[in-house]
Amino acid sequence: MTRQAQSDNSKAVAQHFLLPDAEITLWRLWLDKPDADALLAPLTRELSWRQEQIRIYGKTVKIPRQQVWMGEPHCSYQYSGVRFTPSAWHPAVQRLTAAVSDSINQPLNCVLLNLYANGQDHMGWHADNEPELGVAPIIASLSLGATRRFDLQHQTQGHQLQLQLEHGSLLVMAGACQQHWQHRLPKQSRVAAPRLNLTFRYIAPPV
Amino acid sequence: MTRQAQSDNSKAVAQHFLLPDAEITLWRLWLDKPDADALLAPLTRELSWRQEQIRIYGKTVKIPRQQVWMGEPHCSYQYSGVRFTPSAWHPAVQRLTAAVSDSINQPLNCVLLNLYANGQDHMGWHADNEPELGVAPIIASLSLGATRRFDLQHQTQGHQLQLQLEHGSLLVMAGACQQHWQHRLPKQSRVAAPRLNLTFRYIAPPV
Repeated sequence: MTRQAQSDNSKAVAQHFLLPDAEITLWRLWLDKPDADALLAPLTRELSWRQEQIRIYGKTVKIPRQQVWMGEPHCSYQYSGVRFTPSAWHPAVQRLTAAVSDSINQPLNCVLLNLYANGQDHMGWHADNEPELGVAPIIASLSLGATRRFDLQHQTQGHQLQLQLEHGSLLVMAGACQQHWQHRLPKQSRVAAPRLNLTFRYIAPPV
Repeated sequence: MTRQAQSDNSKAVAQHFLLPDAEITLWRLWLDKPDADALLAPLTRELSWRQEQIRIYGKTVKIPRQQVWMGEPHCSYQYSGVRFTPSAWHPAVQRLTAAVSDSINQPLNCVLLNLYANGQDHMGWHADNEPELGVAPIIASLSLGATRRFDLQHQTQGHQLQLQLEHGSLLVMAGACQQHWQHRLPKQSRVAAPRLNLTFRYIAPPV
């Protein structure tokens, strides 16, 4: 995997969004198109995607996307009442984790992968504020496939930021983002193509 | 007019939104409620509000709000094909202009006032990029009355920021905002109350 040199294209430069209680960085072209293309098909094909069931208000419902939880063996993860133990590393995902970690200069050791088959698949408002992630977690999200809108909303002040997450883009949420903002991937009924995203995290090993 | 001391309330603190190609600052409570209340009724009553007609694609249409253009005598202003000469200062508006200028440490000498009778009144996507305003104009917008949503959209990248402009709030758009972003006040059919806003600008005197 090669990163496009920043001088090649202004889309490869990091864009910063410094907001009240959040620091957002977006590389619109963290991977150039050939590298992003070369990941999308194998990851879609080779991972054990699952449409998980979660309990919401006492009802069991299937989540509107497919997921894989992957990472170091200690990285188990509780989400909407379900505990997930990590799948073993897929070699390409492990290499990407190291490359993203290097790029943002932060340790990363686990990844939630989401597969949105089309614009009907989505993720509702939430924050990545599980206690396993620590107080001010840094979440890095690599997007492959269809461009989707990504919304961030301040939990008390109503401010909202909407970004377009393109094929090969890397979004980093830092600062107090997970404490004070929520985010979602809204439905976009006109989107027909799939989007696969990898959200890289760090869970401290047990002491 | 007294400004609420910053220590009184976190809403009086400036919030910064540093975006690609734009610097936005929002004081949610630049004026406290009694001071904002004391301005809304007299300005609504005493100014010579006009629902201007503009030409769009060869048609003459009334704009969906009322306006007053006010400022120093040299500050004439061309907008959608119509040239406006400024009304003489209303004393309260002149005092506000000086107070805002002092607060943001920038010269200001003219004001476009907009009166939105209810949520049906609105302003479409535009940038304040008239040549009279110079290359990177600083626009300060004081809101009185009903809270309305305010949208900013990057002209080429699709990023969007949505803010809530409350009674007494002051929004400042700076940097390359008027070159690279557009803004609008969208319709909000559920809003029944009026909003009055004052957008302060600076037009250099003729040399």
